[in-house]
Amino acid sequence: MSAAPRAEMHGDAAAMAAEAMALIEDLAAISDEPGRLTRLYLSASHRRAADHVRAQMIEMGLATSIDAAGTVVGRYEGSRPGMPALLLGSHIDTVRDAGRFDGALGVAVALAVVANLARRNRRLPFAIEILAFGDEEGIRFPSTLAGSRAIAGSFDLSTLADRDADGISLADALRAFGSDPAAIAAAARRPQDVLGYIEVHIEQGRVLEHANQAVGLVSGISGATRLGVTVEGVSGHAGTLTMPDRRDALCGAAEMVLAIEDVARGCEQVVATVGRLVAEPGAVNVVPGKVAFTLDLRTFRDAERRRVLGEILERCDAIAGRRGLELHHEVFYDQPTTVCDRALKAGLAATLSRLGLDPIEIQSSAGHDGLALAALFPMAMLFVRCKDGVSHHPDESVSPADIGTAGVVLRHFLEALH
Amino acid sequence: MSAAPRAEMHGDAAAMAAEAMALIEDLAAISDEPGRLTRLYLSASHRRAADHVRAQMIEMGLATSIDAAGTVVGRYEGSRPGMPALLLGSHIDTVRDAGRFDGALGVAVALAVVANLARRNRRLPFAIEILAFGDEEGIRFPSTLAGSRAIAGSFDLSTLADRDADGISLADALRAFGSDPAAIAAAARRPQDVLGYIEVHIEQGRVLEHANQAVGLVSGISGATRLGVTVEGVSGHAGTLTMPDRRDALCGAAEMVLAIEDVARGCEQVVATVGRLVAEPGAVNVVPGKVAFTLDLRTFRDAERRRVLGEILERCDAIAGRRGLELHHEVFYDQPTTVCDRALKAGLAATLSRLGLDPIEIQSSAGHDGLALAALFPMAMLFVRCKDGVSHHPDESVSPADIGTAGVVLRHFLEALH
Repeated sequence: MSAAPRAEMHGDAAAMAAEAMALIEDLAAISDEPGRLTRLYLSASHRRAADHVRAQMIEMGLATSIDAAGTVVGRYEGSRPGMPALLLGSHIDTVRDAGRFDGALGVAVALAVVANLARRNRRLPFAIEILAFGDEEGIRFPSTLAGSRAIAGSFDLSTLADRDADGISLADALRAFGSDPAAIAAAARRPQDVLGYIEVHIEQGRVLEHANQAVGLVSGISGATRLGVTVEGVSGHAGTLTMPDRRDALCGAAEMVLAIEDVARGCEQVVATVGRLVAEPGAVNVVPGKVAFTLDLRTFRDAERRRVLGEILERCDAIAGRRGLELHHEVFYDQPTTVCDRALKAGLAATLSRLGLDPIEIQSSAGHDGLALAALFPMAMLFVRCKDGVSHHPDESVSPADIGTAGVVLRHFLEALH
Repeated sequence: MSAAPRAEMHGDAAAMAAEAMALIEDLAAISDEPGRLTRLYLSASHRRAADHVRAQMIEMGLATSIDAAGTVVGRYEGSRPGMPALLLGSHIDTVRDAGRFDGALGVAVALAVVANLARRNRRLPFAIEILAFGDEEGIRFPSTLAGSRAIAGSFDLSTLADRDADGISLADALRAFGSDPAAIAAAARRPQDVLGYIEVHIEQGRVLEHANQAVGLVSGISGATRLGVTVEGVSGHAGTLTMPDRRDALCGAAEMVLAIEDVARGCEQVVATVGRLVAEPGAVNVVPGKVAFTLDLRTFRDAERRRVLGEILERCDAIAGRRGLELHHEVFYDQPTTVCDRALKAGLAATLSRLGLDPIEIQSSAGHDGLALAALFPMAMLFVRCKDGVSHHPDESVSPADIGTAGVVLRHFLEALH
């Protein structure tokens, strides 16, 4: 590259980074909980965040709406109105006590890039739609990806009856948010109207950090299986029930947690997590009679995931048998691995190369809305370096320089696409 | 024994058993939760249970009150008004999803025996006071035995600031119950006014079942130490945080739960229980960063308990160290072993022998209000056989015949005492 475009790129990058950071900071202040960032799907803070993103889109001159699943949509027309659209986006829900970049980054970079095009009145041979999804983290309800599934036409209407921890159904939460659950089917896009979906997201790993590069490509998104496991023993008096007579559900569950960890440690590129565990009745002086826990299992190869799950269940069964406990499990989420679109990825790789960056490919172990969208449209993702690979934590950090680079990559890619 | 007293005893026993069972059934229907028996200290159902017991006392002609710690008191005067009293009683609070006999049995048998005396207008050379305590199970607040400590003058006023899981302080809960926390000090008895305390309670073990006998003596009450333990690791993304990079607080806590079980299994007459365990943030797809759990440790010999606790903490420390976790613990309850009063126990043993029963002695691994009262008055207990030793569980069961026998033993003991 010559010196001139570098200098031009630098000013562009700084402007887009500043705009994106401003929105990221705005969103970081919108939380369900004081003192920390928690923005669950369809909560009051999600509504405020959606309204804020929409207001920004309106200011940019986009045609906006919030669809029946709570997704904020902003459309930037192409050289002629009504052309098929390339979808850009990410999510604005968060985990509890979250970092500020996971999700917000992709929405903010897409907005900064389109704002850059709009300011120059640069129309492309396709429309762009920016999507801010609301249910990527899957924290509030048993199901997840409601927003992207609605767009992809794969929203399972039976999940409307699912309830959150407070007993509120998804249908009621949608209504409280201001959405009409009956209109969800109408939110689905026709494949002929959509060119594809591209998402910018933090890496949540350390590959880019080790490679000393701001941005990389995503090869695909690891499949994940999630189970609810119940261990039933017999509760009893903590003083009078002798150790040999106990059928302590918590001791059994503890052994299972360690067996799960052991199996995952023994396989490369497998992660297994027991994230939630509840012991009942949960009193200091009562031997626990029942434990419910969740298992989240991820691998890139689907066959490997099935094999590992089988091994885990076999070991848990053996533990339950030895301890006289009853074991039940139910798979409530099962997502095969999704590979990114070859053509979109090649276009992004060419853009990276043109900008002097190595088209590194990284496998995503985190789930993303692209999982749902890839079933209907070509899907690709860009990862942005994040400090120490930390995510789902307040320490999550991305440098403004890297955000600027992501914006430049995305803008160059869009302008080269036809 | 001759045939005549046996027949007399039989009719007496049946009447007392029927009266006691009626009260036990009444109390079993008074619960904080629909469909199962849960009656926590100072809850609305505790208030209703206290009022019900008091109404029954009034019907029997006793002078009644509910003291500042929520204990129901009913006084049956001796041959002259104002004589020192022998205290009889037990508790009317329960664990969650409790059985119906733990606590209620002792109150019901005491009432049935005194009703029997009152009907015959049989006055003894001492008064009898029946006490129905409210805080024996220690479920609601970190501290326990508030009622018996108030009577013994050992109520720790600093515990009034303790809060339950809903953030309600003990002081506020007492006021909501209708008691005046400022009057707790005045509830204390003077040693010269009290002859001793005798409690009838289910065994919560299988010694009497194996001996094929309805009633036995208690040698003493095992000491107990209760700790809150906190394990701190680092929370993170369940997909992107690789297994070797994790500092999973739940995996660490699971290993500690198993170490505790292992240590207790290796010692005779030691029981150790992790009854409560909470993992945070508690989301399916987040590696737990923090776990809090409780440990309840009981042995008959105090030195042995200290030694076992040391061994447990050493092993937990080693686990935390190996996993890069931080470990904190705080002892919030520490009760030395209490031995029953030699003279009262000898009197009860003589009564058992006179009635043709073997004066079996059983060590109580469960805590009782006698722990607090023994510091000030002579204390003794009678255990009643319970089916399969099951307690703290809806399957708890005591036969009416055994309840009748307990009533006869207590009545004979009282009538022989002078």
